[in-house]
Amino acid sequence: MISPSYLRQGIKNENPLLLERFKVLSKGTGLKELYVKKIRNGTVIDHILAGHALDVLKILGIDGREGHIVSVAMNVISKKQNKKDIVKVENRELKPGEVDKIALIAPSATISIIRDYDIAEKTRVKLPDSIRGIVRCSNPACVSNAEPVEPKFSVERQDPLRLRCYYCVRIMEKTDVLRQF
Amino acid sequence: MISPSYLRQGIKNENPLLLERFKVLSKGTGLKELYVKKIRNGTVIDHILAGHALDVLKILGIDGREGHIVSVAMNVISKKQNKKDIVKVENRELKPGEVDKIALIAPSATISIIRDYDIAEKTRVKLPDSIRGIVRCSNPACVSNAEPVEPKFSVERQDPLRLRCYYCVRIMEKTDVLRQF
Repeated sequence: MISPSYLRQGIKNENPLLLERFKVLSKGTGLKELYVKKIRNGTVIDHILAGHALDVLKILGIDGREGHIVSVAMNVISKKQNKKDIVKVENRELKPGEVDKIALIAPSATISIIRDYDIAEKTRVKLPDSIRGIVRCSNPACVSNAEPVEPKFSVERQDPLRLRCYYCVRIMEKTDVLRQF
Repeated sequence: MISPSYLRQGIKNENPLLLERFKVLSKGTGLKELYVKKIRNGTVIDHILAGHALDVLKILGIDGREGHIVSVAMNVISKKQNKKDIVKVENRELKPGEVDKIALIAPSATISIIRDYDIAEKTRVKLPDSIRGIVRCSNPACVSNAEPVEPKFSVERQDPLRLRCYYCVRIMEKTDVLRQF
């Protein structure tokens, strides 16, 4: 029997052919093998848009040198047969500003706080209708880059991202945002 | 019973306390759990100096967008209780130039080519006494940056890295090398 928390902490490889292969080759490891190992305490960011795990690490300020135990899986197959990325960071919980930044580049991500191998909290990131103070306007002539005002954008579309500056109406897309992280 | 190839493809978590915990909590997953999953075909780069997995990805030109299935573990505990990083790339084997670059930043790394879940080849990266054409001299006034000559360095020390330019005797260290990748 596989414990429910084991099933919940990450996504199993659901490709039946691969599973069959695993069944034969990984004796004693069970049928549902996780791409990356369970963690005891920390944060699991799952369902990240495929190919964006390294951007998530950048947002969290993780380059490996700070010593956190981190596992990353990129372009793996999710339950719904879509590609996705996963990031697991041990002994680290996210700050609100970090969650907002992740929402900008990975609007479908889920964030689970793990305590003693169990999910203490699980949330789907959500972009509000307007965002403030997370990114700067990419228009150098925008008043928000010259005066001490807080940058502010309306979220016109979540995916693909489309932000409109409240001050100069400049449109920002995901590539513009990523450049700032 | 755990199959030998299962044991060889990556390093298990050998911390006895954590293992004990796992024993209880991960029913059916076996005692020796890998930090990242086995791969069917591709390359496993193990024993990377802790904190340098992302540099290895950069050397391989992997940012996630190219679609390869990649798993990364950073700052995990190795059999010898040292910290290390691991990178597994599915369906991709390394080019010789990439292996040389990895040797520059992670002289203790091992590279295993996996075919059908088994290790087809395993090598420890090795820096030769002199290297050519992999990095440029960081001295802008060096003749190798002005004339069409191949950059050449003698390897004075592997770890921490110390290269001496054959032309201008400028010393290059790991940080100078990383800036070029």
